[in-house]
Amino acid sequence: MKPQFCYFFGGGQADGDGSMKSLLGGKGAGLAEMTKLGLPVPAGFTITTEVCATFYELGKRWPDGLEAAVRSSLDRLEKVCGKRLGDPADPLLVSVRSGAAMSMPGMMETILNLGLNDRSVEGLAKKTSNDRFAWDAYRRFIQMYSSVVLGLSKEILESRLAALKQKLGAKNDAEIPADALRGLVAEYKTAFRAQTGKDFPQEPWLQLVGAINAVFGSWMAEKAETYRRVEKITGLKGTAVSVVQMVFGNKGESSGTGVCFTRDPNSGENLFYGDLLINAQGEDVVAGIRTPMKLAELDRRMPEVYRQLCDVRSRLEQHYKEMQDLEFTVEEGRLYMLQCRTGKRSPAATFKIAEDMVREGLVTKAEAVKRLKPEDIERLFYPVIDPKIPMSERASRLLATGINAVPGAASGKAVFTAARAEEWGARGEKVILVRAETSPEDVGGMHAAQGILTATGGKTSHAAVVARGWGKCCIVGCGALDVDSEHGRMTVGGRTISEGEAITLDGGVGEVYSGEFPLVKPTLPSSFQAVMSWCDEFRRLRVRTNADTPYDSKRARELGAEGIGLCRTEHMFFDTAERREAIQEMIVAEDLASRRAALAKLLPFQRADFIGIFEAMDGLPVTIRLIDPPLHEFVPHEPEQQAELARKLGIPAEKVARRVEQLHEANPMLGHRGCRLCITYPEILEMQVRAIIEAALDCRKRGVKAIPEIMHPLVMDPKELEILVGQTREVADPLIAASGHSLDYTIGTMIELPRAALLADRIARHAEFFSFGTNDLTQTALGLSRDDAGRFLPDYVDPKRAGIFAADPFQTLDRDGVGLLVRWAVERGRTTRPDLKIGICGEHGGDPDSVAFCHQIGLSYVSCSPYRVPIARLAAAQAALADGTRK
Amino acid sequence: MKPQFCYFFGGGQADGDGSMKSLLGGKGAGLAEMTKLGLPVPAGFTITTEVCATFYELGKRWPDGLEAAVRSSLDRLEKVCGKRLGDPADPLLVSVRSGAAMSMPGMMETILNLGLNDRSVEGLAKKTSNDRFAWDAYRRFIQMYSSVVLGLSKEILESRLAALKQKLGAKNDAEIPADALRGLVAEYKTAFRAQTGKDFPQEPWLQLVGAINAVFGSWMAEKAETYRRVEKITGLKGTAVSVVQMVFGNKGESSGTGVCFTRDPNSGENLFYGDLLINAQGEDVVAGIRTPMKLAELDRRMPEVYRQLCDVRSRLEQHYKEMQDLEFTVEEGRLYMLQCRTGKRSPAATFKIAEDMVREGLVTKAEAVKRLKPEDIERLFYPVIDPKIPMSERASRLLATGINAVPGAASGKAVFTAARAEEWGARGEKVILVRAETSPEDVGGMHAAQGILTATGGKTSHAAVVARGWGKCCIVGCGALDVDSEHGRMTVGGRTISEGEAITLDGGVGEVYSGEFPLVKPTLPSSFQAVMSWCDEFRRLRVRTNADTPYDSKRARELGAEGIGLCRTEHMFFDTAERREAIQEMIVAEDLASRRAALAKLLPFQRADFIGIFEAMDGLPVTIRLIDPPLHEFVPHEPEQQAELARKLGIPAEKVARRVEQLHEANPMLGHRGCRLCITYPEILEMQVRAIIEAALDCRKRGVKAIPEIMHPLVMDPKELEILVGQTREVADPLIAASGHSLDYTIGTMIELPRAALLADRIARHAEFFSFGTNDLTQTALGLSRDDAGRFLPDYVDPKRAGIFAADPFQTLDRDGVGLLVRWAVERGRTTRPDLKIGICGEHGGDPDSVAFCHQIGLSYVSCSPYRVPIARLAAAQAALADGTRK
Repeated sequence: MKPQFCYFFGGGQADGDGSMKSLLGGKGAGLAEMTKLGLPVPAGFTITTEVCATFYELGKRWPDGLEAAVRSSLDRLEKVCGKRLGDPADPLLVSVRSGAAMSMPGMMETILNLGLNDRSVEGLAKKTSNDRFAWDAYRRFIQMYSSVVLGLSKEILESRLAALKQKLGAKNDAEIPADALRGLVAEYKTAFRAQTGKDFPQEPWLQLVGAINAVFGSWMAEKAETYRRVEKITGLKGTAVSVVQMVFGNKGESSGTGVCFTRDPNSGENLFYGDLLINAQGEDVVAGIRTPMKLAELDRRMPEVYRQLCDVRSRLEQHYKEMQDLEFTVEEGRLYMLQCRTGKRSPAATFKIAEDMVREGLVTKAEAVKRLKPEDIERLFYPVIDPKIPMSERASRLLATGINAVPGAASGKAVFTAARAEEWGARGEKVILVRAETSPEDVGGMHAAQGILTATGGKTSHAAVVARGWGKCCIVGCGALDVDSEHGRMTVGGRTISEGEAITLDGGVGEVYSGEFPLVKPTLPSSFQAVMSWCDEFRRLRVRTNADTPYDSKRARELGAEGIGLCRTEHMFFDTAERREAIQEMIVAEDLASRRAALAKLLPFQRADFIGIFEAMDGLPVTIRLIDPPLHEFVPHEPEQQAELARKLGIPAEKVARRVEQLHEANPMLGHRGCRLCITYPEILEMQVRAIIEAALDCRKRGVKAIPEIMHPLVMDPKELEILVGQTREVADPLIAASGHSLDYTIGTMIELPRAALLADRIARHAEFFSFGTNDLTQTALGLSRDDAGRFLPDYVDPKRAGIFAADPFQTLDRDGVGLLVRWAVERGRTTRPDLKIGICGEHGGDPDSVAFCHQIGLSYVSCSPYRVPIARLAAAQAALADGTRK
Repeated sequence: MKPQFCYFFGGGQADGDGSMKSLLGGKGAGLAEMTKLGLPVPAGFTITTEVCATFYELGKRWPDGLEAAVRSSLDRLEKVCGKRLGDPADPLLVSVRSGAAMSMPGMMETILNLGLNDRSVEGLAKKTSNDRFAWDAYRRFIQMYSSVVLGLSKEILESRLAALKQKLGAKNDAEIPADALRGLVAEYKTAFRAQTGKDFPQEPWLQLVGAINAVFGSWMAEKAETYRRVEKITGLKGTAVSVVQMVFGNKGESSGTGVCFTRDPNSGENLFYGDLLINAQGEDVVAGIRTPMKLAELDRRMPEVYRQLCDVRSRLEQHYKEMQDLEFTVEEGRLYMLQCRTGKRSPAATFKIAEDMVREGLVTKAEAVKRLKPEDIERLFYPVIDPKIPMSERASRLLATGINAVPGAASGKAVFTAARAEEWGARGEKVILVRAETSPEDVGGMHAAQGILTATGGKTSHAAVVARGWGKCCIVGCGALDVDSEHGRMTVGGRTISEGEAITLDGGVGEVYSGEFPLVKPTLPSSFQAVMSWCDEFRRLRVRTNADTPYDSKRARELGAEGIGLCRTEHMFFDTAERREAIQEMIVAEDLASRRAALAKLLPFQRADFIGIFEAMDGLPVTIRLIDPPLHEFVPHEPEQQAELARKLGIPAEKVARRVEQLHEANPMLGHRGCRLCITYPEILEMQVRAIIEAALDCRKRGVKAIPEIMHPLVMDPKELEILVGQTREVADPLIAASGHSLDYTIGTMIELPRAALLADRIARHAEFFSFGTNDLTQTALGLSRDDAGRFLPDYVDPKRAGIFAADPFQTLDRDGVGLLVRWAVERGRTTRPDLKIGICGEHGGDPDSVAFCHQIGLSYVSCSPYRVPIARLAAAQAALADGTRK
C-alpha cells in the first residue's frame, strides 16, 4: 500500500491530528488538531516529512503519485474555500510553509500569497475592492518567490523598492499608493527577466511546485543543518510542507492580527495575555514597527471575536493541558487560528503555572514534575533583565538572537579582544567580550568579562564550555554578527557597535540587545517550594550539599539539602592570617613535636567551624573530608611572602624557600595529597578527628544532634584505608568514652581513583560509606587534567571539530568509562557490605543527566553545591518517575 | 601421638633426611642426608623447629617430654661416640648449632666445645696428650658461653686475653703456651664471678640446657627478626638446634680443616676447588689469619683422605644435582663432613655450570632453566670487582656485609652527606654516599654518587627503591656501620673510615671493602647463549625491546629481541641543534602553513632514523609510537635560550616567552600530550606517518624487510582512535600505491589510560594491536605521579612503615588494580578482534614477576630495555614451565 502523501484539513475535518508531529511537523499537526477540535482554522493540506525524505533519496525528485496527490488535495482545498488557485476573477491564495517535528525557528523557508499573477491580481483587486492591497500582495509575492524559490539576490528587487520610497518621500511601505506599486511590479518583472533571462512564472501550479521544492530544499540548507547539529537534533525525517489558504488581517478596521498566551508568561497568572494590531499582517506584529494594543482591546472592538478567542483559549488549554502560545488573524470580523504551540514563559511563571494547573486538576503532580526542565530551576538563580521592562522596549532594542549557551543576563561595554577585556576589567569596568569565536588564548579575557558573545560555535564550542564551567552568561553562534576585532567593532543588521558601547545579553534565550538593561536577581516564587515538595514525594535518591561554612549549610538546607555530602576542611586553614600562619608553621616544622605544636593552634579553629556546621545541619548527617590538597598549596611562593613567614617563625628565609621548593611537584594532582598526607603525617589526622569529635560532643551536650561522617580522600588501597580507619578510631573512641555521652559517627572513603573503584569489595571491608569523587575519577580515568584540558577538550566536545565526546566529561558524567567504574564499585562494594551507604560529591552531583545515572545504579544520595540542590531534587524525581520506581 | 622432638643421626643411620628442611633446618637436614648417604658425619641429634615454636608458645619454657627426649638422644650420642658428656677421663664435647629452613647467615648463635669443665678439661688434656689444645678449648668455651648464653659483655673476657698476649709478646693466640692458658681460665672464672656473683656453670647437662635455650632465644633476636623482614622470609616455625659431636682439625699435622666447592665457583669449570689449612680449626679458615693452601695439597699430604673427599664430592653432586659448598674437618687422618649446601657462584659460573650439568645429563634443560634466577642474568651486565683479585685479598679488606639491594660494584671516596656528594661529584670525583639512612632530601647526592651504602633499611627502604630505579649499586641495612655524618666518618669493626677515604661496594653480595678495587664489565660467557636458547625453546611469550636508535636495536637483537615493541619518536627531535630548531619553530608557528614548513624540515631526519632502525631490525616488526610528550618539553625555559631561539627565527623574544608560558601545564602528565597533539595538529601525524612509510618503502626497494607498526599513544576513546587511524591511512595508502611496491603495515594503540582499558572492546574495532603502557596506566589507575611519588611511596612499600604495597608498583605490575584493567582489556579487546596482537611496553616488561603475569593472561609479547631482554626471555620460559604451557 502506498503511504499517504498529503493530509488534508478544513471544513471541520482533518486527516491527521496533533499526535502526528513526526509525520506532519509541529505546525501541520497543530493545524490538524485545531481543525478537529472544531476551531476556526484556514483550510489546507500538509505534505508529510516522509515525502521530504523520499525526495532526497530520489536525488531531489518527486516520488510517483505525489503530483496526483497534491493536485487532488488542491482540488479539495479549492472546493472548501470556494475559490480556485489562479482564478482571474477571485483567486485562491495560499501560503507554503515548512515545519519539522521539532521547532527550528527561522531556519527554513515560507512563501506567502502564492497564486497571484498578472491576471489574478486584477481579480483580487476587484473582488476586495482594494487595489493597493492586491498590488502590494503581488509585489511581496514576487520579491519573496524570486529570492526563496528562484535564488535571485534579495538586493536586486529590494533596491528598487527603496528607490521608489525615496522618490515618493515615503517613510514606510504603507505610504506607497496602489499605482506606484503597480509600476513597481512592472519594474520587478523587467529586472527579473534581465537577471534570469526568463519571465517571472505566471502559471500557479508551477509556482506551487517551485515553492514546495524550495521548502524541501531548505531542510538541507547549511544553516538548518548547523542548527540541528548544535542543538543535537537527530532522527528527524525531514520537513513537512503545509499549503494553507491565505487569510488577511490587513483588510481594514474589522481585520487584525495578534499573538497571545493562554496565561501570563511573565507572572504565570491565569490571565489571558496578548498583543493585537488592527488592520495589520502577522509580520507587522513581529517587526515591532507599530505599537500593539492589549488583547483586552479586542473585547471592546469586536466582542464576538474576543468571546470566540476566549473559548479557543480555554479549549486548547483543556486539550493540551499546557499553557499555549497562539497566533490568530481576524479577516473582516472572522477569526482564524494560525498556530498553537507550547508557550515560552519566565522562570517564575513556570512554577506558578505548574502549581496552578495541579490545583486546577488540569495535570497531576507527576505530570507537572515530569514537564519541568532543570533550566527552569537554573534560570531562577541567575540574574535576569528586569521583567518590568516592557516587551516592546526589549523588542525595539533587540540586535540579534544566537544560541543560549549559558543562562543569566549581563550588561557591559562591548570589547573585541581578550586583552582589552582584561585591561578594562582590571580597572573595574563591566565588559562583554565579543569574539568571532574564542580560543584558549582568550580565557583570561573571558574570565574578566561579565558575559561572552560569539558569532560562531554551538553549545559545546570553546566559549560555551568554558563559560558554562564558570556559570557565566554566554551566547554563541550568533551568526548575524560581523565581528571586526581589528578595528574594535561589530556590525549587526546594518548597525555598528563600537568598542565601549553598552550591550546586554540574555543568555536564557540567547538574545543580544543594544544598551544597558537593569538586571535583577529573581526572588524564589512561593510556587517553587510547592512544586519542589512534589519532587521530594517522588524521588528515592537523597540530595545533600557540598558546603564548608555554616552560611552555605543554612542556605543549602533552605533549598532542600538533606545533609552535607562534602565538607572540605582545608578551606578552613586559609580563613584568617592566624590560621594560615599555623598551617604554614606546621608545614615548615622539622620534627613531630613542632608539627604537633602548630597543629594544636589550628585545633580550636577547626572545632569552632565544625560546631557552626553541625548546628546548621542539626539532625542531618555531615560528611567531613580530611585534608586533601598538597601542602604546597598552603605555603607562599613569592620571595617577599616567604621572607615574611620566616620572620614570623624566627627561622632563616632560605629554610622556608627550601621547604617550598621541596614541596614542588611535577603533577600535583597525582602527588602527595589526600590521605597520603595522613599516612606520612598521622598527626594531621589526629588533630582533625579530634576537632570533629570534640565539636560533635559539644553540640551533643547542648541538645544539637551532630551526625559526623569522617571521610578519607584519595584512598587507593584497602590496607591504606584500614590504617587510616584504625588511627581515626584510636583518636575518636577515647574522646567519646571520656565524655560520658554516646555519639554515633561513621568512617568512610572517597572513591576517586580507578584502583579504589576496582578494589571496592576489599575497600568496603573498612568503609562504612563510599562517596564518589567523580571530578578526580574523571581526571584519572581519562588521564585528563581539568586545569589543562581547556587547551584541547573543546575540540573533543565540539561536533564540528573532532566531536569525540557528546558532552564535557567534567560537566556530565562519562557513563561509558567513569560510569563503568562507578557501577562496578557500587556492585562490588555491596557484595562485601550490603548496607554500604554510597553517594557522589563531584560536581556531577548537580548535573541532571548524571543524577539520573546515580538513581539508576542505586546510589543512596548525590551531593552538589547549594544552588544546584533543587536541580538535583528535580532530576532525582524525574529519574524515579521515568523508571517507575517513584516512592 | 606426641610429635618427635629430636631426630638422631650417626653410625650410618639418621631419623631424618634432606627433605625435612622445614622441620630440621637446612643444617640438620643436610647432616641427616649425608649420614644416610653413608658419608662420614660426626654423630648428633637435631631438636626440631616445631619445638622452637612451642617454646615460644609456652612463654619460653620447654614442652613436656622435651627433657626426656634430649636426655635419651644424648645417651644415644654418647653410645655412638663411646664417650660421655663431662666424663672427667675422656669427655664427649659437642657443638650446639642453630639452623632454620632458610639460610640466615650469621643471624643466630652457635656454641662450641660444650661439655668442658674444671675436671673434664684435665681428662681431655690427658687423653689427647695435648695440654695446650685442651686448655685453649676450655678458654674458648668459657668466652663463648658467657657471652652467648649468659649475656656477659664480650669485652670483659676478651680484654684479659689481649692483656695476656701483650704481656707474653704473643702476636696471635697460637703463641700462648698451655700454662698461660690455664692461668687465663682461672682469670676468666674470677672475672665471671665478679660480674655475675655466680660461678661459671660446671654441670654439663645444665651447660647444654642453657645453650639450647640460647639458640632458641636467638631466633627472636632483633637482628634475626630484621633480617627475616627485609628478606621477606615468612612462614618459618623457628630454628632447629643441632647438638653435634665436636671434631678437631687442630690436633697436629694429620688434622686439618677446609671449605670446598664441587666446581669452580668463579669460572664454573668442573674442577674440584677449595682451600685447606693443616692443624687448624674451621674458624681459622674464615678468619683469614693464615693463608690457606689449595685443596690439591691434601692429595699430596693425605692421599687417602683426598680420595675419600673426591668420592664425597661426586656423590653429593649426583645426589643434589647442584654444585655444593662443603665444609670438612680431618681429625687425626679421619675425614668428617660438617656441612653441605648449594654453593654460591659468579654470574659466569652460573651459566657454565648450568650448561655443563645439562650436557653431563645431570639435569634436564627445563630443570636448568627453572633453577636460574633473574639476578643471575642481571649480574652479568653490572660491573663487578675484577675476578682476578684473590679471594684472600677480598677477605682481608672486607669491612662489613649488608643487604644486597642493587647489584653491581662501585668504588669511590666515602662521603657522608648528600651535599658533599653533589659537590665532589660535580667536580668529577667518584664518590660513595654513606648514610645512616637516606631521605628524599638526599636524592641529589644519591644521584651524584657511584654507589650508596646505608646502615639501616631493607630492600624496600628509600635508598634501595631510589637506587634500584637508577640501577645504581646499593647496599642497605649494613648494621655494623656507625655513621657519624656530622664529623664526616664512620666506624666499622673498630676501624674508622673518614671522608675522602676510598671504599668499594659489591652490591651483588652486599659486601663493603676498604680501598679501591679494579672493576670490570663482565663479558657474556658462551654458555649464556646456550642457556638462553633453551629458554626460547620453552617460552610462548615473545620478547621485544624498547629502542629508539639503530645502535640500541642491534644490541637488543643480539640479546634476543624479536622486534621493537616501542620506538619513541620524540627523542629524535632532540638529537641535533638543527632538529631542535625545527621542532621549536613548529611549536611557535602561528598558522598551519608555518607549522607545515617547520615539520617539512624534520621529515628527512625522521625518515633517515627510521631507515636505520628498520635495517637493524630487518625482518622483525618495529612498533613506532607517534609523538607523545607535551610540547613544552621541546621549548627552552630560560630567558637567554628563548632569546636565542627568537633571534634564529627572526621573531620577538616576548613571542617565544609568551608561547612557552601558554604551554605551561599544571599537570603535564594529564595534559595536552599523546595523540591529543595529533587531534589538535594533524600535520604532525602527517609528517611522522610519511617519514615511517617512506623509510619502509626505501628499505623495501633495497631488499630490507621493514615491518612498521604505527602506534597512537594515550588514546582514551574509540572515536578518537577512529579519527587517528583514518588520518594515518590517508597519508600512508597513497604513498604505498604511488611506490608500486606492496607494504604491510598495521595501526594500533597504546592502552595506558583506565578508560581505554575499560572500553577495549570498542577500541579494538579500530586497533590492529594493543600495547599496554603500564607506566602511565599505573600512574593514572593509582593516581600516582612517578616523578613525585618518591616523597611518600617508600613509606607505602616499606613493611616497617605503612607497608601498604608488597612491591613498588612502578617496578612490579600491581596485579590487583592495574592488572585487573589489563586483564579486562585483553579479554574485552579479543571479543571484538580475536586475533588482536597484544603487548606491553612499560618498564614492567622487563620485570620477571610482571612478565609471568603477562604470560598468564595470554599477551603476545613483552617489550623492555635491551639489557632486560634476556631476563624477560628467562621469566617467560619459567612462567611457561610453571604452568605447564611450555611450547
